[in-house]
Amino acid sequence: MVGAGQLARMTCQAAIGLGIGFRVLAASPGDSAALVCAGVVIGDHTDPEALLAFARGCDVVTFDHEHVPGGLLDELEKAAAGQDGAAGQASAAVRPGAAALRYTQDKLAMRERLGALGVPCPRYAPVTDVAGVRACAEEWGWPVVLKAVTGGYDGRGVWVCGTPEEAAAVLAHPVAVFAEEHVAFRAELAALVARSPYGQAAAYPVVETVQRGGVCHEVLAPAPGLPPGLAMQAERMALGLAAELGVTGLLAVELFATEAGLMVNELAMRPHNSGHWTIEGARTSQFEQHLRAVLDLPLGDPRLAAPQVVMANVFGAGGASTAGIYSRYTHVMAADPGVKVHLYGKQVRPGRKIGHVTVIGSDVAGLRDRATRAASYLATGTEESA
Amino acid sequence: MVGAGQLARMTCQAAIGLGIGFRVLAASPGDSAALVCAGVVIGDHTDPEALLAFARGCDVVTFDHEHVPGGLLDELEKAAAGQDGAAGQASAAVRPGAAALRYTQDKLAMRERLGALGVPCPRYAPVTDVAGVRACAEEWGWPVVLKAVTGGYDGRGVWVCGTPEEAAAVLAHPVAVFAEEHVAFRAELAALVARSPYGQAAAYPVVETVQRGGVCHEVLAPAPGLPPGLAMQAERMALGLAAELGVTGLLAVELFATEAGLMVNELAMRPHNSGHWTIEGARTSQFEQHLRAVLDLPLGDPRLAAPQVVMANVFGAGGASTAGIYSRYTHVMAADPGVKVHLYGKQVRPGRKIGHVTVIGSDVAGLRDRATRAASYLATGTEESA
Repeated sequence: MVGAGQLARMTCQAAIGLGIGFRVLAASPGDSAALVCAGVVIGDHTDPEALLAFARGCDVVTFDHEHVPGGLLDELEKAAAGQDGAAGQASAAVRPGAAALRYTQDKLAMRERLGALGVPCPRYAPVTDVAGVRACAEEWGWPVVLKAVTGGYDGRGVWVCGTPEEAAAVLAHPVAVFAEEHVAFRAELAALVARSPYGQAAAYPVVETVQRGGVCHEVLAPAPGLPPGLAMQAERMALGLAAELGVTGLLAVELFATEAGLMVNELAMRPHNSGHWTIEGARTSQFEQHLRAVLDLPLGDPRLAAPQVVMANVFGAGGASTAGIYSRYTHVMAADPGVKVHLYGKQVRPGRKIGHVTVIGSDVAGLRDRATRAASYLATGTEESA
Repeated sequence: MVGAGQLARMTCQAAIGLGIGFRVLAASPGDSAALVCAGVVIGDHTDPEALLAFARGCDVVTFDHEHVPGGLLDELEKAAAGQDGAAGQASAAVRPGAAALRYTQDKLAMRERLGALGVPCPRYAPVTDVAGVRACAEEWGWPVVLKAVTGGYDGRGVWVCGTPEEAAAVLAHPVAVFAEEHVAFRAELAALVARSPYGQAAAYPVVETVQRGGVCHEVLAPAPGLPPGLAMQAERMALGLAAELGVTGLLAVELFATEAGLMVNELAMRPHNSGHWTIEGARTSQFEQHLRAVLDLPLGDPRLAAPQVVMANVFGAGGASTAGIYSRYTHVMAADPGVKVHLYGKQVRPGRKIGHVTVIGSDVAGLRDRATRAASYLATGTEESA
């Protein structure tokens, strides 16, 4: 796995269970997965030599993030298809492949492709100046969302602009953006599916994600009160997209549920924050499922292991120390022995995702309260109720 | 953790989730846990220098097996209590401690202690010759069980002798043994509890173990058809023993359910094969629970995560290759996507435990059938029904 963040860390846990040899290409020995994985290679994922050398030691290469440049992905695939010139040794299969990953790296290309496939999306338009944004606002109304074409994730690279002045401030950055209508949604959903090279596919129950400032705070699985017809539509949309885009591994489709129906917001082709609940809450975790899919093994049962599951992210808080989290940890464990705590071994920085907690049961309000209290206490030492 | 077998391997997975630094003292780099753990120290657990050096790098030392000699455990504890002479640096707390571990290393001492505590056990007697065995048989009847005082586990070190000649053959070995009555049991049960230095304790639901040739093949959680009063009695017995013997960490109590009531068969003070089901089947896995207990963290919820759980061990079969297991694996995953496969990365040898499978649901007969088929197919490529 290229990248050694918390997604690679949790994939490492799944690989141990499956008895699969697992290595990570880590930027630094202190990376979340590098701290726990037996097979750590230190290298820069934008350096062709480092990446190709890493791939030569693997059967399959997959990704913890979207940051390997597209040209390099093409090179990796060429090395896999033929013989690697340098070592005379076949390289690893790249899953998901470059053609699919493009749509997670270039959001404008993603919107164009989804539009061509007839998949409902927010209205969007390429823009280069304030006049372009004004033109969009005349049609859609303010606010207008500006999105970085590449490199954005977790609320970064997304700006909600209420005025032309705010848009001008964003456009002053040397970042290619496009404009999108601001969708008034009832709820944000995520549909997570897996697809193997063989073509087998499996869909997890559709979840609701609770976001603040564009960042996911809670995930409720299954999405409470979601009409079954809409859940099925979201699953089918995700399964259809996985097949159309030729995804191998996981595809997470972030959706807006609006008065007018479902709209696709974002795509990711890797284990996703909206699927962390599956470790305890599903028969097969998303991390095991991603491994099974990219290794072309039969997929696991994605069904719920409990009627209701709630996951809450733990964020670093200002003034909170890395060491301090382990004393707050004791409090959380004592207060609620049923809370499952996952810590990523990361240094605490304000706003940084440093862990998550999961609770399973049947009463969504009660589970949200427990998960939110535990996550809040881990982060800050104070409890905040859902 | 001293020792790097599959128990350490699965404890490593739990440590990753908890964000706890975890190291193993492995006899060889190919050991099950050494293959997957980021912190591997190679060394001999019977070598005082290797063991003390390992302990100096840890806050707490715990064990994957019972094979560290008692004298060495005492040395480890002395190093922890004071300053370590060699390096002038405090060593790790030893959990469980030497006084408790003694009862897992010396079965005769265990029987004596349990007798003194009034815990029901099979009748036993020290024996040194056939005359002694004959004397036992006159009172208890044949067969008589001969047990190695130290070093036996997993059916090794236990001989069921039907005649004086069979007993003579066992006594011809240079192994100290004692005699025990052969108990006609209705079922074999296991009660698994955790206890922390603080004194907090938690009990898992009592399970039934299905053994063949003295080796556990299946674990049924909770024990089907066990009267609630008997389950409570087994739990209380295990909790009481953990407190009486001063156990920190897990205590597994193997029990016979007989017409006359419960009898203690064996004790183990570590994660135990009878608790592997907890990974998917309980809110807190036994591996996480052991870590929480030895680190003096509050214990996790030991309750069932599903109405019924079945675990089946996978054994190496004659003629089966290590590589072959990964092709059979695909078949098992395809045949039953709900089966959770755990492989230990061990070379296949006939009779060796190389993995286990777990299924969760509600119908015990159906679950046993699925688990047994999957385990049998993984081992041999043929399905054997429960």
